[in-house]
Amino acid sequence: MRDPRYDILFEPVRIGPVVAKNRFFQVPHCNGMGHQMPLAHAAMREAKAEGGWAVISTEECEIHPSSDLTPYVEARLWDDRDIPALSLMADKVHAFGALAAIELSHNGPTASNLYSREVLLAPSHQPSKYGYPAQARAMDKADIRAYRQWHRDAAVRGMRAGMDIVYVYAAHDLSLPMHFLQRRRNQRTDEYGGSLENRVRLLREVLQDTKEAVGHRCGVALRFATDEFLGPGGVELAEARDIVAMLAELPDLWDVNVAAWYNDSVPSRFAPEGAQEPFIDFVKKATSKPVVGVGRFTSPDTMVSQVRRGVVDFIGAARPSIADPFLPRKIEEGRFDDIRECIGCNICITGDNTITPIRCTQNPSMGEEWRKGWHPERIAPRASDARVLVVGGGPAGLEAARALGQRGHEVALAEASKELGGRVSREARLPGLAEWGRVRDWRLGQIRKLPNVSTYLDSTMSAQDVLDFGARHVVLATGCRWRRDGYGRSNGLGIPGLAEHPAVFTPDDLMDGRLPTGTVAVFDDDYFYYATVAAEALAKAGCRVVFITPDDTPASWGAYTLEYRHVRKRLAALGVEIRVSTNITGFAGRTLVLEDVWSDATSTLDVDALLTVTARLPNDELFHALKAREAEWADAGIQSVDCIGDALAPGLIAHAVYAGHRYAQELGEAKTGEVPFKRHFHTARETDLLDGP
Amino acid sequence: MRDPRYDILFEPVRIGPVVAKNRFFQVPHCNGMGHQMPLAHAAMREAKAEGGWAVISTEECEIHPSSDLTPYVEARLWDDRDIPALSLMADKVHAFGALAAIELSHNGPTASNLYSREVLLAPSHQPSKYGYPAQARAMDKADIRAYRQWHRDAAVRGMRAGMDIVYVYAAHDLSLPMHFLQRRRNQRTDEYGGSLENRVRLLREVLQDTKEAVGHRCGVALRFATDEFLGPGGVELAEARDIVAMLAELPDLWDVNVAAWYNDSVPSRFAPEGAQEPFIDFVKKATSKPVVGVGRFTSPDTMVSQVRRGVVDFIGAARPSIADPFLPRKIEEGRFDDIRECIGCNICITGDNTITPIRCTQNPSMGEEWRKGWHPERIAPRASDARVLVVGGGPAGLEAARALGQRGHEVALAEASKELGGRVSREARLPGLAEWGRVRDWRLGQIRKLPNVSTYLDSTMSAQDVLDFGARHVVLATGCRWRRDGYGRSNGLGIPGLAEHPAVFTPDDLMDGRLPTGTVAVFDDDYFYYATVAAEALAKAGCRVVFITPDDTPASWGAYTLEYRHVRKRLAALGVEIRVSTNITGFAGRTLVLEDVWSDATSTLDVDALLTVTARLPNDELFHALKAREAEWADAGIQSVDCIGDALAPGLIAHAVYAGHRYAQELGEAKTGEVPFKRHFHTARETDLLDGP
Repeated sequence: MRDPRYDILFEPVRIGPVVAKNRFFQVPHCNGMGHQMPLAHAAMREAKAEGGWAVISTEECEIHPSSDLTPYVEARLWDDRDIPALSLMADKVHAFGALAAIELSHNGPTASNLYSREVLLAPSHQPSKYGYPAQARAMDKADIRAYRQWHRDAAVRGMRAGMDIVYVYAAHDLSLPMHFLQRRRNQRTDEYGGSLENRVRLLREVLQDTKEAVGHRCGVALRFATDEFLGPGGVELAEARDIVAMLAELPDLWDVNVAAWYNDSVPSRFAPEGAQEPFIDFVKKATSKPVVGVGRFTSPDTMVSQVRRGVVDFIGAARPSIADPFLPRKIEEGRFDDIRECIGCNICITGDNTITPIRCTQNPSMGEEWRKGWHPERIAPRASDARVLVVGGGPAGLEAARALGQRGHEVALAEASKELGGRVSREARLPGLAEWGRVRDWRLGQIRKLPNVSTYLDSTMSAQDVLDFGARHVVLATGCRWRRDGYGRSNGLGIPGLAEHPAVFTPDDLMDGRLPTGTVAVFDDDYFYYATVAAEALAKAGCRVVFITPDDTPASWGAYTLEYRHVRKRLAALGVEIRVSTNITGFAGRTLVLEDVWSDATSTLDVDALLTVTARLPNDELFHALKAREAEWADAGIQSVDCIGDALAPGLIAHAVYAGHRYAQELGEAKTGEVPFKRHFHTARETDLLDGP
Repeated sequence: MRDPRYDILFEPVRIGPVVAKNRFFQVPHCNGMGHQMPLAHAAMREAKAEGGWAVISTEECEIHPSSDLTPYVEARLWDDRDIPALSLMADKVHAFGALAAIELSHNGPTASNLYSREVLLAPSHQPSKYGYPAQARAMDKADIRAYRQWHRDAAVRGMRAGMDIVYVYAAHDLSLPMHFLQRRRNQRTDEYGGSLENRVRLLREVLQDTKEAVGHRCGVALRFATDEFLGPGGVELAEARDIVAMLAELPDLWDVNVAAWYNDSVPSRFAPEGAQEPFIDFVKKATSKPVVGVGRFTSPDTMVSQVRRGVVDFIGAARPSIADPFLPRKIEEGRFDDIRECIGCNICITGDNTITPIRCTQNPSMGEEWRKGWHPERIAPRASDARVLVVGGGPAGLEAARALGQRGHEVALAEASKELGGRVSREARLPGLAEWGRVRDWRLGQIRKLPNVSTYLDSTMSAQDVLDFGARHVVLATGCRWRRDGYGRSNGLGIPGLAEHPAVFTPDDLMDGRLPTGTVAVFDDDYFYYATVAAEALAKAGCRVVFITPDDTPASWGAYTLEYRHVRKRLAALGVEIRVSTNITGFAGRTLVLEDVWSDATSTLDVDALLTVTARLPNDELFHALKAREAEWADAGIQSVDCIGDALAPGLIAHAVYAGHRYAQELGEAKTGEVPFKRHFHTARETDLLDGP
């Protein structure tokens, strides 16, 4: 079954006292569920174990109340009462022959302690990381001894929870052993500060402590960042080489990456597959221990190349394992075109950053494994033999058609245009977004294998066409369009002069290839990616671009996807002029009237065109036309007409895919009350944790 | 016992079928615990019931998964499984003869649905409120019927939970009945849009629904915002008068305020006690039903005046009830100088906004009632007869001395300067912060009543002095000082040229009355209030102020205290020039060297002085001197020396007060493991909620 070219990926690899069954290694990643939703968390990890990953890691795990990360929800091992939640995961992972790993962390000055109300700890006195107005205090020797004891205790608790691998964490600028390495955080004058040997001391001690505590039963991994790209205040590659040389054989496993998180998990708009290789390829040459590296790897050939060329021993993955928990098994079974490749949109990361459960654009089951019982690969067979008409071949319609087809329904998919993919195809043509086309490609590939799904291009459907078609269920996924009237968050009554102005453009024009020229103002009242992508496209097309937003920063929501800093640097490099805290109150001739949102002062700006990114309107005309003829449905054999995705409420591609999948999952199934999912409740009894619903 | 002047405040007032025992009404307020920490939440409300409030309300309560406010943690009544958590609160409130109220809310486009993944609802298609990249969809008639049913169901569930008052919520721009009123959110063309009568229709229906559902047992309250200060797109005072006239007798109670939240709960820096009167005083003239209004009321005479002048029937309060849960009882008992007055710093609000349990600068027990067993008034008697020396009379030292004194310890408080209060006294002299002096005033008032606490001014203590003093326990609360070397978040190695430059100032200089003149750059690498207060002080002193920050907005952490928008408007009004995303890399002569953090482009700026707000250093010299002489402690009779508050780790006044209180609470008590508080755990079993630890 397995193509021998990929045999190397399925070799077992020893990690200290334990053996990983293959080279697929799900590195620690946050998920927004953590200690608050232990059953949901365990089920999410279980799906990956079932999908063939040899090692499944937790997210970072708080080892003590003085490393409280609240409001962020990670793993927690403050005392024995936290063990059951993690045992839950370890047991589920073991059931599929995978190893469970836990990433222990004391976050020092990068914790919050907003819940525990403990004083933050750090190598030296310093501000906390996230703008929080309490400083961290310099640890004295007793504090260092206490920290080492907490770490040993947590390692033992992790082992008791069933973990096979225990991580020492020195990456992402998020843990004390790394903070002691950093000159900007460590100004100590004792044996823990100053020289590199001194700054490495704590990391070495904690590695030794951990091996002593659990090394007989658990592999001890070190997660280590080789560069922060911050110059001499941070960890730099040259010094990292020395550190790796100093500690080479101490851990049982090296998991190496770059810091901070926004440099590690770079969106595909800003970095390709395998981008970290130049920063980590030296590690394997310096140690005999196995090395894990990440690079948003989804290509089996790239993976083989990484191993054969001696870059890594394990294919580390977070995002690819989210988009496709079954990636290893699909490679093993030679089902390469079934791989649901990560598109690098980083919507997964917005879960942790918005303190909500993880979701995924490509994999709508992510985060729903426990609460809705959704599986990344399987779906219940159809509840009836109803024929379904899907109108619209964008992300919602494609996923609905695919999942309905997987359930066994006879499905017709009608697309008005000459290409499938809808907004996915259109957006994938914009700068940096090509990989987003994978949302379409995977679904088209799957649909092609389903004989019960028929696809019709160039097939605009009127209400009469739908009534005549003869499907029992109709689902409309007809997308949306950008508004041209300025209506949006800051202008709920619209902007005078825009609706009829011939020089007003929207992202739709851009995606249709209609670009303005000359000086173009991009007006962003949306605050995510559309406006900065538009600015980039226009700048690259030779326009002078002035980026105007009523918000106080451009693309503020991009902070949640880790693209914010990359966007800012790119706009700066492109010479885009940025005017924040600025609204538009009128546009006549070439003259924009601007208003400062804080001072109310007005000014004017002459431009050749204005591209507005404010709000969208659903293309729901067909839906309303059908609703108006509801009396005729029964005669036409129609039981239901639904509207989903952008045609119901414009959102992200992730929302559209989810809506299509949900439609398919729920068609014909009984409704389960107003709350269509299982929930965790909150108790003060620590004995309840392991009980199911 | 009661002064007859205040009898009027203790008259019972009827609210539909129920009667409030007096005029003290804790209006709904968020607390960051809500449905996630039901036992902690109930205990917090219980403290207020014990303290004499006649009505105790929940925070806003989500009535349906399509009004999911995650990550914000409010109350929740999605289905019957959510009833026990709220019964817990109602029972505790009833035990003290108070009424329990619940504020039902469907937040429409101002929900997130990040957890439930439902599509957002709104009067018309529109963007969501918080920048979240999914739009809300226009509700059709079936949606409106469904919403009304959800509200009825939630009202019944609230009644079953034991609530005496059920709120219909139309305030803060946070709920559908208000969204239907707003022209910027409601562009409907049916009978729910257009004319005022049409826009009021849903609010009227929901009030009628609620009265029908629970009016026989519960008072039905309407929380209504009379002005949003947004012009014709929002609710305006003139229209609000018409709305009140239209609905005058429909609710059993009017709870009136202004919107949005940042205009309602304005920090004392920007609004005095009673600031809402001009916007709500018309309501009582238009209805025979009782009226609640808020105004951060802490003065009994102001309260009496509000009632006698016919402004309100109930003294509504959120913040004053947080700072002093026993405020009503203290007035009733004539203990006016025991009232712990709210200082209007809005740290309480940062709990909800940072998704962590509420805390209070004045009341360190807030949020600790259940998990640490702290009571706002009582404290366990001393565990030993140990004599305690407190060094430093700032907020930490004052609270430590006061609480130790309350426990019965013999306490000596030594303050180096000629005044008590430390940073509180110093900061209260800065523009807008005068009310913060209440932190000092209340503690001084309490200490004056404690014969076992002695206070010594002008008493600098050396290590030898401490050893000679003869206390068994020594606690150092010696404060901190601002750094002058530029070291901070953005410059972990400092800024060249600053440390020795004679024209570098810090907030300490300002508070000591040493102000620069001419053109002054304020460099904010701290991101909270200090730098903007400094800018305000300098501008008012006649300086030309240039505000420079490496952050992308000024005073970003002020968003959590709701002061951000007020700060921006004030800086604009004062003509302060703002340069964001700008770091300082050098200062020589009069020339600052600036660097754009995104483009790395450098520029220069000539100034007469630079005031830096970057980081602080603890005044811990005495602590280290004593630690160095630890061998001598036993002979001196010293068992412990601790360092607390800013002297340990500089933070907020709230942290200092908390540290002082915690020291006093824990002195002589047994340590209870690494986690010194009770926790809620998370289960999938809905039956566990009512069980205690």
